[in-house]
Order: sequence, then C-alpha cells, then structure tokens
Amino acid sequence: MSKVIDFQTDPSKYRHWKVEYDGEVANLFMDVDEKGGLFEGYELKLNSYDLGVDIELADIVQRMRFEHPEVKVVVMQSAKDKVFCAGANIRMLGGASHAHKVNFCKFTNETRNTFEAAEVDSGQKYMAAVKGACAGGGYELALACNYIMLTNDSTSSVALPEVPLLAVLPGTGGLTRVTDKRKVRRDLADVFCSVEEGVRGQRAVDWKLVDEVVANSKFDEVVQQRAHDFAAASSKTGAKGISLKPLERKFSDDGAITYSTVEVAIDRDGGRAIITVNGPSEPAPDTVEALYAQGCDSYLLRTARELDDAILHLRLNERELGLIVLRTQGDAEAILAHEKLLLDNADNWLANEILQYWKRVLKRVDMTSRSLVALVEHGSCFAGPLAELLWAVDRSYMMLEEFEGDNRPLAALHLSGSNFGTYPMGNDLSRLATRFWGDPDAVDALRDRVGEVLEADEAEELGLVTYAFDDIDWEDEVRIFMEERASFSPDAMTGMEANLRFAGPETMETRIFGRLTAWQNWIFQRPNAVGESGALQRYGTGIRGEYNMERV
Amino acid sequence: MSKVIDFQTDPSKYRHWKVEYDGEVANLFMDVDEKGGLFEGYELKLNSYDLGVDIELADIVQRMRFEHPEVKVVVMQSAKDKVFCAGANIRMLGGASHAHKVNFCKFTNETRNTFEAAEVDSGQKYMAAVKGACAGGGYELALACNYIMLTNDSTSSVALPEVPLLAVLPGTGGLTRVTDKRKVRRDLADVFCSVEEGVRGQRAVDWKLVDEVVANSKFDEVVQQRAHDFAAASSKTGAKGISLKPLERKFSDDGAITYSTVEVAIDRDGGRAIITVNGPSEPAPDTVEALYAQGCDSYLLRTARELDDAILHLRLNERELGLIVLRTQGDAEAILAHEKLLLDNADNWLANEILQYWKRVLKRVDMTSRSLVALVEHGSCFAGPLAELLWAVDRSYMMLEEFEGDNRPLAALHLSGSNFGTYPMGNDLSRLATRFWGDPDAVDALRDRVGEVLEADEAEELGLVTYAFDDIDWEDEVRIFMEERASFSPDAMTGMEANLRFAGPETMETRIFGRLTAWQNWIFQRPNAVGESGALQRYGTGIRGEYNMERV
Repeated sequence: MSKVIDFQTDPSKYRHWKVEYDGEVANLFMDVDEKGGLFEGYELKLNSYDLGVDIELADIVQRMRFEHPEVKVVVMQSAKDKVFCAGANIRMLGGASHAHKVNFCKFTNETRNTFEAAEVDSGQKYMAAVKGACAGGGYELALACNYIMLTNDSTSSVALPEVPLLAVLPGTGGLTRVTDKRKVRRDLADVFCSVEEGVRGQRAVDWKLVDEVVANSKFDEVVQQRAHDFAAASSKTGAKGISLKPLERKFSDDGAITYSTVEVAIDRDGGRAIITVNGPSEPAPDTVEALYAQGCDSYLLRTARELDDAILHLRLNERELGLIVLRTQGDAEAILAHEKLLLDNADNWLANEILQYWKRVLKRVDMTSRSLVALVEHGSCFAGPLAELLWAVDRSYMMLEEFEGDNRPLAALHLSGSNFGTYPMGNDLSRLATRFWGDPDAVDALRDRVGEVLEADEAEELGLVTYAFDDIDWEDEVRIFMEERASFSPDAMTGMEANLRFAGPETMETRIFGRLTAWQNWIFQRPNAVGESGALQRYGTGIRGEYNMERV
Repeated sequence: MSKVIDFQTDPSKYRHWKVEYDGEVANLFMDVDEKGGLFEGYELKLNSYDLGVDIELADIVQRMRFEHPEVKVVVMQSAKDKVFCAGANIRMLGGASHAHKVNFCKFTNETRNTFEAAEVDSGQKYMAAVKGACAGGGYELALACNYIMLTNDSTSSVALPEVPLLAVLPGTGGLTRVTDKRKVRRDLADVFCSVEEGVRGQRAVDWKLVDEVVANSKFDEVVQQRAHDFAAASSKTGAKGISLKPLERKFSDDGAITYSTVEVAIDRDGGRAIITVNGPSEPAPDTVEALYAQGCDSYLLRTARELDDAILHLRLNERELGLIVLRTQGDAEAILAHEKLLLDNADNWLANEILQYWKRVLKRVDMTSRSLVALVEHGSCFAGPLAELLWAVDRSYMMLEEFEGDNRPLAALHLSGSNFGTYPMGNDLSRLATRFWGDPDAVDALRDRVGEVLEADEAEELGLVTYAFDDIDWEDEVRIFMEERASFSPDAMTGMEANLRFAGPETMETRIFGRLTAWQNWIFQRPNAVGESGALQRYGTGIRGEYNMERV
C-alpha cells in the first residue's frame, strides 16, 4: 500500500456517495462502488468502506458547510437495499499495514467528529436513517450523527460485532459514543458489543442505541418529516455558499509541495518535513461582503485548506519523516487584520465557517503523530491562528536579537483575543489554557499583553516559547534538537506526545483519540487479531480465528 | 516466568526495604538486595526494582495504615549512596513476557496510587527525599509522593530517560503526573523526557519537577525538619494500630483456594475462576472498641484482605482464566450491620481505614483485565461493599422467583447509603453514578429505595442487574454467556472492558490506567522496544537499539 493517497476530491469524482440538495434538507446517500477500492485486493461489498470512501465523505461534509450553508439537516442513508453500511472493509484491514490501519482510523475519526460537531458549530444537524444492516463502522457512522432513526423490519438492526467477529474494537468512536454520548448502561453495552447480530426494534430504543424506531411502511416519509421538523426548529439563517475550487498545488520530484501560501520542503536524510506558512500578500478585505467576493481565495480560508492538505499528505504518504518543522514568514499585523474581520463578524456564516475550519485544522495538527517543532525566525508571523501552531507543537525555538546578515524584521509574537478560546483543542480548552494548566493566573496575565509586540526575551519569560537563542547558539541548538529527535524510537515519541499534549480535562473527543484509539492500536498488533490465524485474516474463510487465551 | 507469585509478605521477610518508626514520622529506606530478584537472570543493581520489591512496598504501605496509624509523615529515601532509585529493572523487563510486563506495571501503579492517596484518605503524607540518581520508575516513585525534596550535589537529579534510552514510556504514571499533578509545562516536559541525564538543582524547582532543592550539607537535617513540620501541621489524631496477621489460606492441587470467608474455585476447561464471598458468621461488633479488639479478624477487614489477595493471585498466576465469576452467600442484613458500624464511626481511624481499604479493593476489581460477571443466586448477600461488586462487573445475572429444590432465601438486593459515594471508582464517581451516567434522576430514585428488600423483578427493572432469569432459563442463559465469553479473543475483551467500564469524567487515575497504560502496552509490543534489536534487549550492551523509523 505505497501509492500516494490524495485527499483532494470534488463531486465530479465521487464514486461512493450521492447528495440530493433540497433546500434546508440534504439527503446523503452512501452507495459504495464495490470496484472502487483505493487499493487492489478487496471489493467494497455491502457498503463497506476504505479510506477512499471516507475521503469523499470528508469532502462532502466540508462542502456542505462552505458550499451549502442553506442546509440545516443532512440525512445520512443508504442507497442500497438491505444494508445501511457494513463498516470498514475487513479484507482491506486484513491486508493493510499497521501504520495504514492506524492512520485510516484517525482520519475516519476526524471525519466523524466533524459532522458530529456541525450542529453546534454551523447549525447543520446530521441524522442517520437506518434501513438494513448497520454494523460496526456503519453503526459508528450513525453514532456520530445526532439523531438515529431505525426501521422496524426484521433485517434492520444496529450492531457492533467487532469483538466477537473480528477480535478488534469498535474503534472509530463506537465504544466511547455508546457509553458517553448515547449513555447506554455499561452492562447493556457489554451485551450489545458481544452479539454479532446486534439489536433491533423497540429494544434498540429502550437501550438508547437509537432515538426512534419507525414502521417500515412509513419509514421514508417519517424520516423526511423529522428532517423538516428539525430544519424548521433550527435558528440557522439561510445563505448562498461559496465554491471550494481545486487547490493550487505543485509536487516536486523530491516530494516538496508548493501551494499558494504554504510550502512543504522535505529533508529525507534528516527525517523531517519543513512546512512554511507565508503571510498574506494582500490587505484584509474591509467587509464580509468583500470576504464573500473573495470566496475560497480569501487568505485565511486558502491557508487553512492548504495546511490541512499538507498535514494529511505527510501523515499518510511520508511516514518516515518523524519531525515536522513549522515556520512562518510574513506580516503578523496583516494576518491579525484578516483574522479581525472574521472575529468582528463571527455571526456571519462565512466568517464563522472559516474560524471553525481553523479550529479543525489546528486539532488535526494536535493529533498528528509526528514530533512537531516551531521555529520562530526573524521575519516570521506567528499571530492569530498561526500563533496557535506555537502551542500545538511539542517545542518551539525563537530567534533572539539580531542575526548577522539577516535583515528581516526581528522575531516577535503577537497575542490576539482569539488565542484565548476561539480555537479550542479537543479537550475544550484553549492551547494557552492547556499550556499553563493549573496556572490560570498566567493565562490571565497573558490576556493583558494582547496587542503588544513580544520579542524573544519576553516571549521566553512569559513561557510562550520553549527557548530563545541568539545568533551564536541558534544553529547548533536547533540542529542538535533535530538530530536527537531523529535518533529516538518513533513509537516511544508517539506515545509520549499523545500523553504530554493533552493535560487537564478530557472530553469524548480526547477519550476517543487517547484511550479508545490506544487500545485499538494495541489490539491491531496482537496475533489474535492480525496473526496468520487471527480473526482479521480468517474472516470470510468460514474458519474462526485461533486465539491465545492468555489475558494480558 | 511461571513460578507462583505470592502477594503476602510481612516485615520479617523483607529483603529490599527498611522502615524506622519514630513517632509521627517514619523513615522508609529503599535498599534493594541485588540478589533478591523474583526471577533468575537479572540483578537488582542501583536500587532498581521488580515485582518482588514492589510487593514489599505495597505491604509496607498497607501496614503503615493499619499497624502504624500514629505515623503522619513517611519519608521515602534511599539507603544506598549515590542512587535514589534507578527504576524498574531493565533486564527483568527485557526478559519478561508481555503479560508479565503489563501486570507488573498495573500493580506498581496501584501501589503508587495507594501511597499518593494516603494523605487525603488517612492523613499519612508521603514525601520523597532524593539524593543521588532518581531515574525512570525511581522518579515515578517520587512523583507519587506529595512532596519532593532534592539535594543539590552534582550527581543528584531527577530524570525520565525511558524514551531516549529504552524506547518505552515512563508508564508508571510518569507522563501523567508530570503534566497533571506537577503541572509542568508541556514543552518543558517534552525536554525533560528527552534528556537521559535529567534535570538537577534550581532548574528542577523552576520547572516544577521537585518542590524544594536543599544544599547537600544540610539535606538530611532539612528533610527531617520538613517531615516534622508536616506532621505538626497534620490534624490526624494519634492511635495505636492493629496487627495484620498472616491470612488463613489453603491452596488445593487444582488451584482452588480456601480463605476464611472467600473461596476461589477453578474451572480450567471453562476458562474461569469462581470467587465466592461468604457472609459473616458472627454478629457485628457493637462498638468501635469491640471492632478494635477483633482487629484483623473483624469480618469486613478480613474479607477485604482475602478478596484482594485472591484477585492479585488470579491476575498474575492464572492468566488463562479469562472470566471471573463473583458469587456471595450469606446474610445481607448481617453485612449491613457490620458496615453500619463503620459508617457510623467513620471518624474513627480503624473504621475509616477499613472503608478506605474496601475502596481500594473494589478499584482493584474494576481494574482487573478479566471479564467479570456476578451471579446473584438465592441465598446471596450482595449488600454494602459486596453490592458494589454487582456494579463493578461487566454483567450480572439474578435468580428470579423460586427454583425447584432450592430452599435458600430468595435472591434479593439491599441498597445502603454507602453505595452512593463511600467507595468511589477511579473516576471519582460511585459505581451507581457511573452505571447511570447521564441519568442522575435514576440515581436519586435509587436513593429512595435504601433499606428495602429488592427482589429480582424489581432489581432488573431498576437497572441494578443485567438480567433476571427463572428456574427454566437460568442454567442455559448463564452457561451460554460463559461459553460465549470463553470463545472471544482475550485481547479484544481487555480493550472493550477498559473502555466500557469508565464512562463519564476522567481523573489522573483513570488517565494513568486508561491512556498512559494503553500506549505503554502498545509500545511494549513494538519491535523498536522489544524486538531482538530493540532498545530493551540491547540495553547494557553498549549498542543502541535499531529502530524502524516509520511513524504510526
């Protein structure tokens, strides 16, 4: 599985999903093309999915928010008879490398989180209309919707058969959402997760697995009625969307990528990628009307899309680059002006969507299993959403005072109000609150510095960067750090970073990525699941997996 | 490593620790016997530890509370020159099976939690006086103390070198306590966990890694001064302890164990152990004085000790028994009378210690990586702390109405006030609040039922048990469940149960067991750590581990 995976797509290329837009309600049909798998060796039967299917879904969810802000309710349903969705394709999982499995689950989790949060963030509610078998990852798709309807025919049920059938977990949020979102009693959840055939009819409502069961004869009608009821109750105001045009993007032979504002350089010997985000070349639009006219070309939206694509590309396609270096170059004041327009007009749908998208992109950075370092060089512009990068990384280095022969403006930081809550992490805290966990006074003190220009000595003293080094030490210190990092075991780094990055409270989101995912990753290495006689390999052969019965 | 591990010990057998009792202050010296390893193949150099060393520590911590309630401050220190503690023994880890590593870490974590909580639970504060190298698990010992003092000589430092040196995590709470307890800034924590040599002197205070640095020449004196200051500030009242005599315990050839109130039967073909807790044969003591006179023979203390030992024995020595069946037989009212004496006298030190110990034993059950089921049979006595077992298990089955030929009293449940908060889980909620997470009204409604006798139909309706079955169905249903459970992959069960058991909020404790441990377990299977060329195998050879540099 070494082909390059592209996260960019558009409706003209979809093979697995169809959307029917009908004013406030969009009907989203899953209709997976069996022959449309991302890799050879498996067929996507029974509406099962692989990463390619999920890339399309993520694109739909994204376009729903930018291109179709008029939509208030999205009804997720199947276009196939007798099956809603059979979940992740087992043969794909059986053949995939450990790294691909883990990355696949992470991306699908991020997509689930995105449409789950769309109701709160954008007033777009996703509901699932389940007809036919809805199993494993299929039910996890439904669980991430905020309303689940189930028809009452004899073949329709919801199920999480991973444990009995495959010796793995419902790891795309399934276990967590059952107990923490749906609040299913834990012993009933235990029963539910142990029965291959799942639960149907009224019992599914009684156990809180679905919200409503409807007679099959009236199902489609009641679903549409419910969707329109939800839409009528929504306070979201209508609007006409903007078009998300294809990204400007150029790959070089060495793997480097040039976008319009983002550049990715590759240092293969050093085991690292260097992402540079360039500041805006044009002044901020004066009004939301002007922003709207710019559409997807507006600086902050364009940059978010490019950075998002770059991160996903590195995750999936450059797995041996263990360190991502984040740089910026440009005019911090200009970025703040672009951000200010959004913040001042946060009740405008487009301004809100751009801010929400930055929140998601920054979470994607938080969740990236690579060592992350920010270099705050002269001429840099870590401000607004880009300042968040400084606190998303594991460490930051800042240039102190003038460097010989370097006539760029002195490195400086600029705090803005947005750094105190506009872009919360998965733990629902701002990155600054997480950084100074247990020390709210430090955060309050920083609030007083909004608007100031903070040079390196002050930034270091305030704890905003890890280190400030002058011309004499900079190059050595940065080089030594990078070499050191490249010498460590990538697995230990992943585990360490997953623990150190998220201090303080937990949310369903951090539990899914931190607890559920960690256990799933563990199981994804156990012979009972992935060995030659393990359940994933044996699936479909009619022979049950052979298990080592020792408990660990 | 298949020898039977015994968790029972007493001071006459200690090889690795010494305690000097001096009124309100106890000085606890770690002085590991190099030749005293639990298994062959390694020497416990530099105060490194294995499970045997930790079993002694757990015993000391337990006796400190029951035998030495006069102690208000425990000073943990090293009896060796130049080293406080080098952490878990690497050669032991390199040679141990995956299951042993995981169980070892779980037990050491439980011991750390116990002395960390002793201050709040019992007024016994543990402080660490660090002289010499304090690395890895050594620093994790100190981190679980509630005050850390470090001497300022050139060789004394605190360090978490696991990641750079061993390609594993500081997994005994280290990463979590650094960010969540000590509140070290995450980028500084990243630096700290990356430097083999650790941090010493004032920087250790500045980074919040220790509480105080003291000149070497005055160190011992200041440590004792600080200990006496803490003792003087304590509100704990003095008392004379009771003696924890050796358990009555008889092993049969088939692995069964008979204690005074607890019995463990083994069904090896069925892959399960059956624990039966028998109710008291004597009435509850009338007064705390009478309780004190009974000492460790008092019913609830004796039962807690026996159940604790049984669980630990099964975890380490019976790894292929994937299911633990919990039964009780006896007089529920009698148990409630025993418990009532403790609850009515919770300000008495001994009554408090017995309640606190039940809290710990029940948490040990929660944390046990086996499927757990409770059978509420006729004649059973799930009441008070034993009722908690019902909600610690993954599922429960209750006998409904009369069974032919069974003349035991009808199965019934009895709620008591203690079930609403006396024995919180690691997530700081009662088991009932966790069970009905998101439905506080259900918990309130149960409060009104305290004191009633709840038979099976009502217990099922109230959600207190999973299923109630009558004479016709009982045997088949229970048998089918057990057979089904025995057919599943133990790994998937472990992951599923670790997720379903802890709904709702998280605490440092649940983060350590749920997040940190899961990542450590993952890493404990990765070739970079445990493979032939991995860091754990290569340690001490002078050759660095060879790593696959792919990030997962």
